[in-house]
Amino acid sequence: MNDKESLKAAFKRAPYQLGGNGPRDIGILKQVFDEIEGTQESDIYGAGTLIEAFQSKIAAYLGKESAVFFPSGTMAQQIALRIWCDEKGSKEVAYHPLCHLEIHEEDGLKELHHIKPVLLADKDRLITLEDVKTLDGEISCLLLELPQREIGGQLPAFEELEAISAYCRERGIKLHLDGARLFEITPYYQKSAAEICALFDSVYVSFYKGIGGIAGAILAGGSDFTERSKVWKRRHGGDLISLYPYIMTSDYYFDRRIGKMAQYFGEAKELAAIFNECEGVYTNPEVPVSNMFHIHFKLPETAVLPILREVCEATGVGVTSWLHEREEGTCYSEISVGDSYESVPKEKIREAFRLLKEKLEAALSA
Amino acid sequence: MNDKESLKAAFKRAPYQLGGNGPRDIGILKQVFDEIEGTQESDIYGAGTLIEAFQSKIAAYLGKESAVFFPSGTMAQQIALRIWCDEKGSKEVAYHPLCHLEIHEEDGLKELHHIKPVLLADKDRLITLEDVKTLDGEISCLLLELPQREIGGQLPAFEELEAISAYCRERGIKLHLDGARLFEITPYYQKSAAEICALFDSVYVSFYKGIGGIAGAILAGGSDFTERSKVWKRRHGGDLISLYPYIMTSDYYFDRRIGKMAQYFGEAKELAAIFNECEGVYTNPEVPVSNMFHIHFKLPETAVLPILREVCEATGVGVTSWLHEREEGTCYSEISVGDSYESVPKEKIREAFRLLKEKLEAALSA
Repeated sequence: MNDKESLKAAFKRAPYQLGGNGPRDIGILKQVFDEIEGTQESDIYGAGTLIEAFQSKIAAYLGKESAVFFPSGTMAQQIALRIWCDEKGSKEVAYHPLCHLEIHEEDGLKELHHIKPVLLADKDRLITLEDVKTLDGEISCLLLELPQREIGGQLPAFEELEAISAYCRERGIKLHLDGARLFEITPYYQKSAAEICALFDSVYVSFYKGIGGIAGAILAGGSDFTERSKVWKRRHGGDLISLYPYIMTSDYYFDRRIGKMAQYFGEAKELAAIFNECEGVYTNPEVPVSNMFHIHFKLPETAVLPILREVCEATGVGVTSWLHEREEGTCYSEISVGDSYESVPKEKIREAFRLLKEKLEAALSA
Repeated sequence: MNDKESLKAAFKRAPYQLGGNGPRDIGILKQVFDEIEGTQESDIYGAGTLIEAFQSKIAAYLGKESAVFFPSGTMAQQIALRIWCDEKGSKEVAYHPLCHLEIHEEDGLKELHHIKPVLLADKDRLITLEDVKTLDGEISCLLLELPQREIGGQLPAFEELEAISAYCRERGIKLHLDGARLFEITPYYQKSAAEICALFDSVYVSFYKGIGGIAGAILAGGSDFTERSKVWKRRHGGDLISLYPYIMTSDYYFDRRIGKMAQYFGEAKELAAIFNECEGVYTNPEVPVSNMFHIHFKLPETAVLPILREVCEATGVGVTSWLHEREEGTCYSEISVGDSYESVPKEKIREAFRLLKEKLEAALSA
């Protein structure tokens, strides 16, 4: 096993983990289905009470007319952009350079839909109103990701969002929300999901980030939009005969965790402050605006990997399971606070950070 | 409720059903997961023992080098054709006029991949070697569906298949198998799945037809081919973080039913013969070559719907849950024999057909 694998293995075995909702194992499914009657009818090709009720519930929660359940956000978002491009008759959209569609989807948007993205802003900062004002009239749709995951989960001020939304409406540019972590930002904005979504023409949300389901996504908007999305869902091969394993787990964990987002947010701020007390470590954002943040180490991956493993093995506290290098000589990881954090005793956290600090200081002065 | 809905409702309530593997309810999932430990790790984005072991198992069963699990056949088959088109540098493929890609996928192949299909053969008969010989050198791939579902599940002679395969190889045309019901035809051909698949460059199989899983498909072929299919799977939005609800049920029901295909085939022949004894009724094929056949009624849908409902309510035997009209004044349905048939007492079947005959004769002479 190399150092990356050793850290991952140690994290998995750890009795305490700072981030997440626990292991992504089969138990996530079993917990839900153990409580459900086997005679309940499945959804069939997008029809049936099971799927329709959940779609209506989430449409109402997001304040949108209609919603469609998708197996993945990758599929849902490409389709949203395609619909807005077809409506305007232009193949140009705009989004952040670190947008999921740009860096994690093997260029599906370009290869399948021949849509050309304009990259707005620098990759290490948020899109601003000033950036949006540089767009020309050919742009069909602007995608905003809230929070911007790849830069630690940053958010613009709500007033800036409102201004971007107003500008786009005035210029005939559709505004799409990549809300993979939308539920997680409502406590910071002190707004309901519907108040945030009201600024957008279409919205995607995920059920396996803060909500902790197995997989699955909702795409919401006006009925015309969602009806067209169903045709594209079939074209993509996403109109499965039955999606209930994802729908029922999404629904179950939505009910269980939607009320805990403020708690996760508070805990993320508490935890980030502890990291920021360590020499050679800082978080981005410094003060989180959701349940997530990035931890940056001013040391190379090769130095930090064994330290995190040793802290984990000595104290039982898994800080994180992975590190990536972005700039030479530094590395980072990501924490999304979920159910696991509340079950770590405070004394255990203090013990883990005492050791982490000690080891980092030794490495920094080496 | 209209007559179509009434028949469907009566069929669902019926203690006995001639076709299928029982109700498509949540119990299909529960039966599998009740027996599995919750601590088993899930698959993560196509990796992990759970998905890799199943892919290897089915690749071996199909006699192919490699296999990839997909959420749907729609996705898997578009991707297979796309890969063969890219390899040849031509956007032309050939398939039957009633191919799934042509009639059930909202033209995903054309809209997403800009592939142009040449329709071979008339829609009411199989593709022959003579049809294949009319293809020009621009065709990247010929798709054959075995059995041809929309015409009752017909099959060419194995010798004709071999000749088509040899011809395609010689002319540089890739041969793809739509094997949605491949497992179901091995008893008729008296060949293993691998012997049939050896004639094809790529193969798709489904796990919710004869196998009776929830959803899911395998695409198999050479390793180069399957590696490229994974990139397209991500582009389509099918590389879900976890597919285990479909993989584990596919695996469970594969083991449970793969050995029963000869039984289903024998029962389908027995059942088709009983239908063919009814005046005004014939099956297609007359003698089934798999577990499936179509039942044609020489009476309009409006006449047959109430008859089937009455037979169902009076005898407890659900003959079928639906009818479609193709030509005016006639209608048809489809039966795929599965686990349900063996649990219908023979006396019940005789009773149901006595009543069905009586009612059809009355309607025909009315």
